[in-house]
Amino acid sequence: MVAELLAEEKDTIELAGKIARDARAAARLVAKAGAAQRERALRLVATRVREGARRILDANGADLEAARRGGTAPAMLDRLALDERRLEAAARALEEVAALPDPIGTVERIVRRPNGLRVGRMRIPLGAILIIYEARPHVTTDAFALCLRAGNAVVLRGGSEAQHTNRALGEAIAAGLDGAGLPAAAAQVVPTTDRALLEALLQHDAELDLVIPRGGEGLIRFVAERSRIPVIKHYKGVCHVYVDAAADEDMALAICDNAKTSRPAVCNAAETILVHQAIAPTFVPRLEARLRERGVTVRTDEAAFGVEFLDLVVALRVVPSIDAAIAHIERHGSDHTEAIVTRDLTAARRFVDEVNSSTVVVNASTRFADGGELGLGAEIGISTTRLHAYGPMGAEELTTTKFVVHGDGQIRT
Amino acid sequence: MVAELLAEEKDTIELAGKIARDARAAARLVAKAGAAQRERALRLVATRVREGARRILDANGADLEAARRGGTAPAMLDRLALDERRLEAAARALEEVAALPDPIGTVERIVRRPNGLRVGRMRIPLGAILIIYEARPHVTTDAFALCLRAGNAVVLRGGSEAQHTNRALGEAIAAGLDGAGLPAAAAQVVPTTDRALLEALLQHDAELDLVIPRGGEGLIRFVAERSRIPVIKHYKGVCHVYVDAAADEDMALAICDNAKTSRPAVCNAAETILVHQAIAPTFVPRLEARLRERGVTVRTDEAAFGVEFLDLVVALRVVPSIDAAIAHIERHGSDHTEAIVTRDLTAARRFVDEVNSSTVVVNASTRFADGGELGLGAEIGISTTRLHAYGPMGAEELTTTKFVVHGDGQIRT
Repeated sequence: MVAELLAEEKDTIELAGKIARDARAAARLVAKAGAAQRERALRLVATRVREGARRILDANGADLEAARRGGTAPAMLDRLALDERRLEAAARALEEVAALPDPIGTVERIVRRPNGLRVGRMRIPLGAILIIYEARPHVTTDAFALCLRAGNAVVLRGGSEAQHTNRALGEAIAAGLDGAGLPAAAAQVVPTTDRALLEALLQHDAELDLVIPRGGEGLIRFVAERSRIPVIKHYKGVCHVYVDAAADEDMALAICDNAKTSRPAVCNAAETILVHQAIAPTFVPRLEARLRERGVTVRTDEAAFGVEFLDLVVALRVVPSIDAAIAHIERHGSDHTEAIVTRDLTAARRFVDEVNSSTVVVNASTRFADGGELGLGAEIGISTTRLHAYGPMGAEELTTTKFVVHGDGQIRT
Repeated sequence: MVAELLAEEKDTIELAGKIARDARAAARLVAKAGAAQRERALRLVATRVREGARRILDANGADLEAARRGGTAPAMLDRLALDERRLEAAARALEEVAALPDPIGTVERIVRRPNGLRVGRMRIPLGAILIIYEARPHVTTDAFALCLRAGNAVVLRGGSEAQHTNRALGEAIAAGLDGAGLPAAAAQVVPTTDRALLEALLQHDAELDLVIPRGGEGLIRFVAERSRIPVIKHYKGVCHVYVDAAADEDMALAICDNAKTSRPAVCNAAETILVHQAIAPTFVPRLEARLRERGVTVRTDEAAFGVEFLDLVVALRVVPSIDAAIAHIERHGSDHTEAIVTRDLTAARRFVDEVNSSTVVVNASTRFADGGELGLGAEIGISTTRLHAYGPMGAEELTTTKFVVHGDGQIRT
């Protein structure tokens, strides 16, 4: 028994090592491939996803069946489920990323130094990226697409609920890569979802350059606590809307409504509304009526602040000043997205300058904190870690820059 | 005895918590302070360093005396030693950083979205930064200066050899901060250098945003293995000069000489010279003669590749092609700095495109891989980690950006 366990552990460690080394080797080839080759691979994968629809949907059916038997909640089943429409959306998303400008090889901020050296920064891929996610199978193709567009190899470790679906999607990806002359290891779908393998992968900081965990707080903490590889985290979104004394009440009503109710289960939905006391007597009754109409429960107790409800529940607080609103956000916020509604330029300016969440919004819904909406083309996640990328991350956020120096014989004295 | 040890451990944990929380609180105030206030603090600290010269040099004398009694090597004593000239250089460096453009608050890449939203990225401080370093006391003022210029609070944890000197410098810094109306906790010199306190500090990822270890590989690994805070590492510099078939021989000689001998103990000094076989028959004898003249030992054995000698020793290898040179660098390099010497545009282009070290140089010495030389004004270190910053890091690399979105009532449909 002990010998078997030890053998199993050894297998896990060896498998993690192989995945990591293959990713590193593939990363070199993907980086060398030109923009056109990467674009071709993305378009071929879209074609393979369409051609393989039957097999992918069958695999998804098996996952759904197993999940149903396991008593999975309906909301989770919905996240897991694919149909022809969703699969077509995944294929189209691949083509949209294929059409994005290639970020690799651009040279920025070129300066000429007094000694004649020309110094610039050239954009290069990060290398090999490990993406860890949960039930949604479309993350498999979305994450692959952005990583490849940015010249990286990717290791995709999805949730066990979606393992058959992810394997079938992985086959479509491998076929597309192969058709474009890129190695299959440029996108490896991890074959097992056991945590021991994940832990072993997280030790490979020499081969893997970045890990992005997407999902629940438990998963993210598991990764952050064990990883030797740099992690870009997105713990949660406790987004605030602050309705200033000088707000247009109708605009504030529309924004609060939209921020809370348009899609309550996502991270850029508002969880707390702060209202300046000067406007509260007229505004709060209107707000409560509107939210009631939408089926939203309003909570005003202290315990409701800082909670990510992800549901038709909102915390509401009347504050004596913009300073109190900013202090409340500093204390209870999650560095995701906060909005102010105001006609007062000074208030807007102060809010923008003093609130250092990853997205700060003036007179619009928090729901715009999204890579697509902010013009990044697509997004791989929203970082609430200040290092490397802060806020929605697109293809460019999966790259770095190197210094390139051109001289004609300069030496340092 | 056990009770005493437990009490000590508790004290260490409490002290780490206090330092981290104070740094976080100070970071908020430093971020809110304007550029002018931060600049004033830097100039005042320079003045305080000059005024406190006697006390600082006395403290340094005590450190040197203890180091000498402890049998410290002369090279290390030299790194530790301050005199009036070096102290004046530290004060002037503070003033130079004070004169750098303030990176905070600039808004870049503003776009207008089809729905009328205006989206830009505003540069903001990282927050609170922990710098871990060894003997050189000038790092205390240099690191403080760049962190403050970028709007951050800093925790300075120097080596035990320099603890009296660092404490005296810390007093000058505190006095300067106070004079400019900034909190002393904006730059805390850690009062003890024991490793338990460092380990405890490295757990505070909720308060500290970044840790930069500067020093030997052992220290950096110690930090990387224990830190919950993101780490920007610079393990070592194994820099290569590749002398191409089409090199100008005189230029190549001058560059190899300069890269190896101008300051052999620094990380941007060359450790390996690769020579294309077509030029080797004429070039290698000239190179060996020149290096001999300079007292450099040339090693051609396999074991010499990938070694950071930091001394008048160089590895030399004749390669059959530029591909072999690039493959050698990929295998033995450290992602620091590599140079090519060539008159052939295709060779230069391939080297720049395919070598993804943090600095890639054409026809100049590797010794230019330095924040000052590359136009960053000053540097806090050279990152060989691709995340966040890659290569020399100046004030801007100690910042991040947030998204700022301006609308006039937009909601998401």
